[in-house]
Amino acid sequence: MTRVLVLNGPNLGRLGKREPHIYGSVTYAELKEHLEGTGEGLGLSVEVRQTDFEGEMVQWLHEAADSGAAVVLNPAAWTHYSVAIADAVAQVPTVIEVHISNVHAREEFRRHSVVSPYVKGVIAGLGLGGYDLALAHLAATS
Amino acid sequence: MTRVLVLNGPNLGRLGKREPHIYGSVTYAELKEHLEGTGEGLGLSVEVRQTDFEGEMVQWLHEAADSGAAVVLNPAAWTHYSVAIADAVAQVPTVIEVHISNVHAREEFRRHSVVSPYVKGVIAGLGLGGYDLALAHLAATS
Amino acid sequence: MTRVLVLNGPNLGRLGKREPHIYGSVTYAELKEHLEGTGEGLGLSVEVRQTDFEGEMVQWLHEAADSGAAVVLNPAAWTHYSVAIADAVAQVPTVIEVHISNVHAREEFRRHSVVSPYVKGVIAGLGLGGYDLALAHLAATS
Amino acid sequence: MTRVLVLNGPNLGRLGKREPHIYGSVTYAELKEHLEGTGEGLGLSVEVRQTDFEGEMVQWLHEAADSGAAVVLNPAAWTHYSVAIADAVAQVPTVIEVHISNVHAREEFRRHSVVSPYVKGVIAGLGLGGYDLALAHLAATS
Amino acid sequence: MTRVLVLNGPNLGRLGKREPHIYGSVTYAELKEHLEGTGEGLGLSVEVRQTDFEGEMVQWLHEAADSGAAVVLNPAAWTHYSVAIADAVAQVPTVIEVHISNVHAREEFRRHSVVSPYVKGVIAGLGLGGYDLALAHLAATS
Amino acid sequence: MTRVLVLNGPNLGRLGKREPHIYGSVTYAELKEHLEGTGEGLGLSVEVRQTDFEGEMVQWLHEAADSGAAVVLNPAAWTHYSVAIADAVAQVPTVIEVHISNVHAREEFRRHSVVSPYVKGVIAGLGLGGYDLALAHLAATS
Amino acid sequence: MTRVLVLNGPNLGRLGKREPHIYGSVTYAELKEHLEGTGEGLGLSVEVRQTDFEGEMVQWLHEAADSGAAVVLNPAAWTHYSVAIADAVAQVPTVIEVHISNVHAREEFRRHSVVSPYVKGVIAGLGLGGYDLALAHLAATS
Amino acid sequence: MTRVLVLNGPNLGRLGKREPHIYGSVTYAELKEHLEGTGEGLGLSVEVRQTDFEGEMVQWLHEAADSGAAVVLNPAAWTHYSVAIADAVAQVPTVIEVHISNVHAREEFRRHSVVSPYVKGVIAGLGLGGYDLALAHLAATS
Amino acid sequence: MTRVLVLNGPNLGRLGKREPHIYGSVTYAELKEHLEGTGEGLGLSVEVRQTDFEGEMVQWLHEAADSGAAVVLNPAAWTHYSVAIADAVAQVPTVIEVHISNVHAREEFRRHSVVSPYVKGVIAGLGLGGYDLALAHLAATS
Amino acid sequence: MTRVLVLNGPNLGRLGKREPHIYGSVTYAELKEHLEGTGEGLGLSVEVRQTDFEGEMVQWLHEAADSGAAVVLNPAAWTHYSVAIADAVAQVPTVIEVHISNVHAREEFRRHSVVSPYVKGVIAGLGLGGYDLALAHLAATS
Amino acid sequence: MTRVLVLNGPNLGRLGKREPHIYGSVTYAELKEHLEGTGEGLGLSVEVRQTDFEGEMVQWLHEAADSGAAVVLNPAAWTHYSVAIADAVAQVPTVIEVHISNVHAREEFRRHSVVSPYVKGVIAGLGLGGYDLALAHLAATS
Amino acid sequence: MTRVLVLNGPNLGRLGKREPHIYGSVTYAELKEHLEGTGEGLGLSVEVRQTDFEGEMVQWLHEAADSGAAVVLNPAAWTHYSVAIADAVAQVPTVIEVHISNVHAREEFRRHSVVSPYVKGVIAGLGLGGYDLALAHLAATS
Repeated sequence: MTRVLVLNGPNLGRLGKREPHIYGSVTYAELKEHLEGTGEGLGLSVEVRQTDFEGEMVQWLHEAADSGAAVVLNPAAWTHYSVAIADAVAQVPTVIEVHISNVHAREEFRRHSVVSPYVKGVIAGLGLGGYDLALAHLAATS
Repeated sequence: MTRVLVLNGPNLGRLGKREPHIYGSVTYAELKEHLEGTGEGLGLSVEVRQTDFEGEMVQWLHEAADSGAAVVLNPAAWTHYSVAIADAVAQVPTVIEVHISNVHAREEFRRHSVVSPYVKGVIAGLGLGGYDLALAHLAATS
Repeated sequence: MTRVLVLNGPNLGRLGKREPHIYGSVTYAELKEHLEGTGEGLGLSVEVRQTDFEGEMVQWLHEAADSGAAVVLNPAAWTHYSVAIADAVAQVPTVIEVHISNVHAREEFRRHSVVSPYVKGVIAGLGLGGYDLALAHLAATS
Repeated sequence: MTRVLVLNGPNLGRLGKREPHIYGSVTYAELKEHLEGTGEGLGLSVEVRQTDFEGEMVQWLHEAADSGAAVVLNPAAWTHYSVAIADAVAQVPTVIEVHISNVHAREEFRRHSVVSPYVKGVIAGLGLGGYDLALAHLAATS
Repeated sequence: MTRVLVLNGPNLGRLGKREPHIYGSVTYAELKEHLEGTGEGLGLSVEVRQTDFEGEMVQWLHEAADSGAAVVLNPAAWTHYSVAIADAVAQVPTVIEVHISNVHAREEFRRHSVVSPYVKGVIAGLGLGGYDLALAHLAATS
Repeated sequence: MTRVLVLNGPNLGRLGKREPHIYGSVTYAELKEHLEGTGEGLGLSVEVRQTDFEGEMVQWLHEAADSGAAVVLNPAAWTHYSVAIADAVAQVPTVIEVHISNVHAREEFRRHSVVSPYVKGVIAGLGLGGYDLALAHLAATS
Repeated sequence: MTRVLVLNGPNLGRLGKREPHIYGSVTYAELKEHLEGTGEGLGLSVEVRQTDFEGEMVQWLHEAADSGAAVVLNPAAWTHYSVAIADAVAQVPTVIEVHISNVHAREEFRRHSVVSPYVKGVIAGLGLGGYDLALAHLAATS
Repeated sequence: MTRVLVLNGPNLGRLGKREPHIYGSVTYAELKEHLEGTGEGLGLSVEVRQTDFEGEMVQWLHEAADSGAAVVLNPAAWTHYSVAIADAVAQVPTVIEVHISNVHAREEFRRHSVVSPYVKGVIAGLGLGGYDLALAHLAATS
Repeated sequence: MTRVLVLNGPNLGRLGKREPHIYGSVTYAELKEHLEGTGEGLGLSVEVRQTDFEGEMVQWLHEAADSGAAVVLNPAAWTHYSVAIADAVAQVPTVIEVHISNVHAREEFRRHSVVSPYVKGVIAGLGLGGYDLALAHLAATS
Repeated sequence: MTRVLVLNGPNLGRLGKREPHIYGSVTYAELKEHLEGTGEGLGLSVEVRQTDFEGEMVQWLHEAADSGAAVVLNPAAWTHYSVAIADAVAQVPTVIEVHISNVHAREEFRRHSVVSPYVKGVIAGLGLGGYDLALAHLAATS
Repeated sequence: MTRVLVLNGPNLGRLGKREPHIYGSVTYAELKEHLEGTGEGLGLSVEVRQTDFEGEMVQWLHEAADSGAAVVLNPAAWTHYSVAIADAVAQVPTVIEVHISNVHAREEFRRHSVVSPYVKGVIAGLGLGGYDLALAHLAATS
Repeated sequence: MTRVLVLNGPNLGRLGKREPHIYGSVTYAELKEHLEGTGEGLGLSVEVRQTDFEGEMVQWLHEAADSGAAVVLNPAAWTHYSVAIADAVAQVPTVIEVHISNVHAREEFRRHSVVSPYVKGVIAGLGLGGYDLALAHLAATS
């Protein structure tokens, strides 16, 4: 059974409370439950985590590199500057970067990702559904 | 039954023959057949087209705007400069931009899209599977 | 009788339908009829055309260069990248560039025109009235 | 009767003497007389002024804001740096920016206007005729 | 008794009338009266002035340099280009730069101040209260 | 009684020891004590904290968002790159950004703040007195 | 016998009529005849074409990719923005880019070619003789 | 007898008082007296003026243009942004730009002059002696 | 006995596992043991640490500032954005920055270090040997 | 008999030894012999030289300017910075710039030539054959 | 008797022959003789030299540094890139940089000097007279 | 016995005399003697050279390429622009770039090296000790 870590960066624990016109009203707890259920349906062992600490995210990516898990990564704000996470991503064979909002339709600085050159692919703007698509892709290609 | 136009830009008619280490070996004809089949499975009426003429693409987008069809758009090279297509996209309520390769892991100029600010979402780097995900998303949200 | 070509670029055929808060509610057909009438009143032979194909626009500009017609040109999205049209414009003695909206009050990229250095003058932001002014100017100076 | 202030920035008092290959040979006094006459013909109460002092121009724009006059503004050199004038313009509902020469066909720095984002429209390159068009537009839309 | 000049740049004489959603509804006359009263309460001799002429502002700053007065300066639009005022500021030992609105949350060009490197400190975005804080700081440190 | 969190970023725990020619000789402990006393005098419930961990700062801002506390924030070095903190700030209704030194008179990179567009206001260069002003402002406006 | 397509972009059909001080007085028809004759002399099967439509040029390049023909390409204005043509060029093993004028001695924007990274070589500034050299090179190396 | 206007921009009236480590201790009055004496010795009719008002400087340059006087111009802070002065300078046949300090050894922004492209020559960094050299040059070439 | 902290940033705990074509096959544990032995041979008291948390690194640098230890610092990914670490480095008298790979021969962004202006010196590209050189230099100069 | 100097810049004396995958395996001596023979066949008096000293190259270009010789110039690395050579080139009526490799398909900095604006034409990427074409062009046009 | 070296960079040996519309018709030999005579009249021991070799210029500047001679330096093309000469200039107490033409009225790249931050002053655009002024200044201040 | 060339660029022959606050007081002759002695102690055959001529440096690098010697290179000012030296360096298997001062703590332009992408490693800011470390590294790895 393919193992998948769904890793979420800073401020994503506040989904549902945070700027709902941008991020929607589903809470992080609901997202977590939904994705773990979805994973089950797809034959994937999905674990959903969130952290506001860059160091913790780096170590979760190391864990994926060591265990062979695939990663669905929403780096949130770190997308735009955390080379530390980019360097950790580069060690994991399969990472799909997900953004809930369409980062290209917001502030200019949100259009640049330091992480994207090191991932397999990127899904942005499709809301929480982007996570579902990432899982579906992993199920279809693993 | 939701109508979906899958619109492909320049050089995509040569899928399978064009730089297969980047774009894979599936031909355009096979892709077309596959997506129309997939659409059927999802309850979508999918039509796949390709053109090397910017003007034709602009008019297909007008057709979608008028008919209410959703669009899956791979603007290919036009991604990086065709404001004409961006302006046409802005008239269509639901456009998902798809790129076969991870445009962020190639030449620097491929990282900038003039189209993205006007679409709903972007899927890049997941190969031809990106089209499947776009259709799945349309099916799930329509 | 001075001949004037009023040439319109991509997406302008959809005037009235396209983002009416920016471009107004007059349709392209109405604009065409209006300008041809206005021309008559000014003693000008006015012909209004629209195309979504860069190549066709280039050839219409060649036609003007050969026939000695003056041109009122709304290059629309091509304003910002079509050097092909700029090069064609450079062959026509009298071209007035018209923009319906105030391009300086929208996205940053709309402030740069590759065409402007080669025209006689530019009118922007005065709505469809900009076309009328261009014709009035041609009538007054021809 | 609509009141219109035609406000001219630095060095424009020297029209006719200043670089006539760029600005033509009509003097400022002649322009003033011509525009006030033109205004009369159009049913507009036109007053033409010129100043080399930014502070005076700012105050004339305040006067327009308070009196409800429309403004035809040639900011001349201030176009390129005077945020003070841009901020004053932003307080006047109807301002048409006019440039005698085609600023896009001269030095690179003349292509950028700090004023344009706050005006209704811009007319450039049509010589002194640009002022006539601006008045005609105000007559037609007031 | 410490002397303080509160110096205001272009368009600030129109406080209360100018874009009240940005600058509030208190008039300049009310601000002047309020600050002179506040100064009295703090044991400061406060004089409030406003000018639309850069040259006059430069000379007021010279006056402060010669008389040893502290300055609370709202350079308004000049913030972004007037090196003349920056050079005058550099001659005054104590200048506090005040902006009514949060210049960082508006147009990009408003984020750059040519004056700030030469002042003691900057207060921005706290409305007219920013002037009060500047006076309080001067009272506390003089 | 209005609750205020005074949150300090990296290296600020070393106030008094760190480059005293820039940051002064008052220690962090003294600052904390002073501000909590000042708050009391102003009728505010002030709590002063410091952290070198971005994740901890993000969570303190979440705490403010949830509890309705106002925030006085010195993001220190994070000012210039931490989008994570900027995103957290955007969730808190009242944040005043404080810098001890005049960031505009130091290295060029210190002039740019990724946080400022999301705060209410900014106070810089007024030494530790900047914190006092921020508290005074909160007391005056709450 | 080696097949060579000499492909010319927009406005080149007007050679002889278009800015003769830059492009010379030989007409396109004369160029075509000359090059086909020259090719014969070199043992090459040369076909000369011109189009103002990007889509047509893309398809001619596909034709070359499929047939194994070498290409002498003057992309004219497309040089500076048509990634579509660059992407098509990348599929053809042997492309020599030719410019009639010295693009480095004209407007700044003409110095940048999006096509050049994908061709074998570039010849610029040697007038129509540049085509002859390209053919001579193909004859010498095929 | 050749007439020379020595025109000084903002803050130069405070020579001797203003940052003497940069501008020296000679006062403006002494400079004026010295240059008028020097002019006499060289057979030049020299008049020295200073203004903090851009508009006044523009008009003095007009006066030179009309009277045929040569100009020695120290634009001071205006050097870096006043296109109004640059445009006025362009109307005067002989202008020598003088800077007291070496503008290339100070802040980066002082290295760029909007005026220099329109003058005959520039002398910088030679202290007040730069004015003497400018007069000597005018005496030698008139 | 001089105390030296050898401090390693994010992802360096995975030496030997991480992209061995760039970073080599020696593990972090082996490096640690080797450097502590080397230090002993040089008469230095060497302690080797690694962290993925920026806050922890900042505090280790504070520890060095307080204890007078010299630092050999490999900031890894933080090199390119962590002003927090740069600010902490500025408090430590002797810091030598070490990079294992030649950062100038990789992605463009790796060429810029926000830390380097505040260190004593930089050693890059000499593999793990760079640490040895840094220790040798500290031994020779302490 | 037309005299032609073929002048080669730094490192070109090592052709055949230097990065043969870029520059090929023909030695400089062979190139020299080949080109002098080719020249003879074309009725040109060809002399081939190489230098690693900028000053010597400048003087050879002076020699060409004085003697009326045409020049085929491979400026090699100087292409990208030697304004001294560009200034010397500007004095020679006929210079053809040759690059062996396609400079547009290598490091970004190799795409910019300070020399090209002053030459007649440029040939790049056609290997040593580029020199042959340059000679052929000179023979055909002299 | 003050010793002055007048040092001229590349291509200046060809004065009189080189682009006389820019550099005038006086030859280098005449300039040399004139300046040595002028020096005598001013009580200066003037020696005029020219070189096309950067290394030789660097060594002449060392000679000035060692002998205490003042330098009048026309770095010509090296102005724009030779940091080697800038570094040598930084070792000489008195260097006056002279340019014959107004470098600000020519190509953009000629406006930037890498040398100017290290000289005492700059004279540009006053033709060969600029050398005379530099000598006069040295005579007046030595 | 491994042969090492220690090659020094422009102005380094003046070590000890040149800006001793930056470069120290040891003379070049002392450095040379010291390094040759150090080399002996390490079992290396070290030869130390210095030149102010780029061409000579290029040829010394060719000599290293041919003889298999390792190189310790201080390119001094050439670091920032000499592509000729960078191209020569690219031909030598082992080059260590050394800078005496910390180039990152000086003028901005000193932070960019055109040479570094082609060397094995870089040592900067460790004074003359940087040369010792380079030799130690070569001894340890050869």
